[in-house]
Amino acid sequence: MAILTMAGILDARPRVGYFYTGKTTMQAIGESIKNKRVKDYKSVPILVKENTSVYDAICTMFLEDVGTLFVVNEQNDLVGVVSRKDLLRSAIGKQNLEDVPVSIIMTRMPNIILTYPDETLHEAASKLIRYQIDALPVVRPKQGKDGSQTETKYEIIGRITKTTITRAYVDLGNEEL
Amino acid sequence: MAILTMAGILDARPRVGYFYTGKTTMQAIGESIKNKRVKDYKSVPILVKENTSVYDAICTMFLEDVGTLFVVNEQNDLVGVVSRKDLLRSAIGKQNLEDVPVSIIMTRMPNIILTYPDETLHEAASKLIRYQIDALPVVRPKQGKDGSQTETKYEIIGRITKTTITRAYVDLGNEEL
Repeated sequence: MAILTMAGILDARPRVGYFYTGKTTMQAIGESIKNKRVKDYKSVPILVKENTSVYDAICTMFLEDVGTLFVVNEQNDLVGVVSRKDLLRSAIGKQNLEDVPVSIIMTRMPNIILTYPDETLHEAASKLIRYQIDALPVVRPKQGKDGSQTETKYEIIGRITKTTITRAYVDLGNEEL
Repeated sequence: MAILTMAGILDARPRVGYFYTGKTTMQAIGESIKNKRVKDYKSVPILVKENTSVYDAICTMFLEDVGTLFVVNEQNDLVGVVSRKDLLRSAIGKQNLEDVPVSIIMTRMPNIILTYPDETLHEAASKLIRYQIDALPVVRPKQGKDGSQTETKYEIIGRITKTTITRAYVDLGNEEL
């Protein structure tokens, strides 16, 4: 009952009891979904360095059992994203996979779609669909020494994938309070 | 209001008006999710034959832009599933990809996790998480000529993927009735 009141479907009024506020269940569902934040659902990002070979990146992907790797420079700034699809494309190419660094095949900044800790999980899910990608890096802008963000470098602190969203969907159906 | 009544949060009683039935918003959300069926969300499955080479399968995967291919025999029975991960694994192997048929690397029946048109999308999503897979074939059992299903062959009529679930999640947050 407290939850129903919190969700705004019923308003508590002294002496009058509960009455209907005009919100539909579907609106309540929408709001409940829109209250979930990226920071509460993100998982650990798997990182590789720019000079990692495509071959080693593929091995890392299998070892860590992930579909997307994030590429960082020496300062740990996010510089690229490599998907299973990118790796498969180069695996059927003619090059020697041990000689090609991931920096050659990665999607690089500023073309990477980002998400942020305080963004809603719903907005992150919408980005996955809109941009047809499997994963988003969760980032925090790094401030320059003078406090400016002119270069806008990003620290990567997590990842949100279609698996994250699928798990959230399953949890949503299982919730019984 | 009709929806709220349908969802069972409020019960209509002649003369007494609406009263609270004891169901919480979260239960209503759970029920709303559990009303969605696989048949209403499935997308088109991309099929290849058993003797398709791994190389051609990879090309089909890129052309169709999917992460999973379903393998059928001459009678169009579902016999296997090949993921991007399976193809990547064999792409870094030593074999000539044009000489290896997908039937060598596919996950085969009866080890394929299936879903059915009338199953809930929630149950399908749960299977994706539980078995750590990216896609499920939506199948219909084929009846033998005598009406028996002793061999249990399956016709494949669709696919449900983590993308399907992510899209359903986005829609759920956007619903405003």
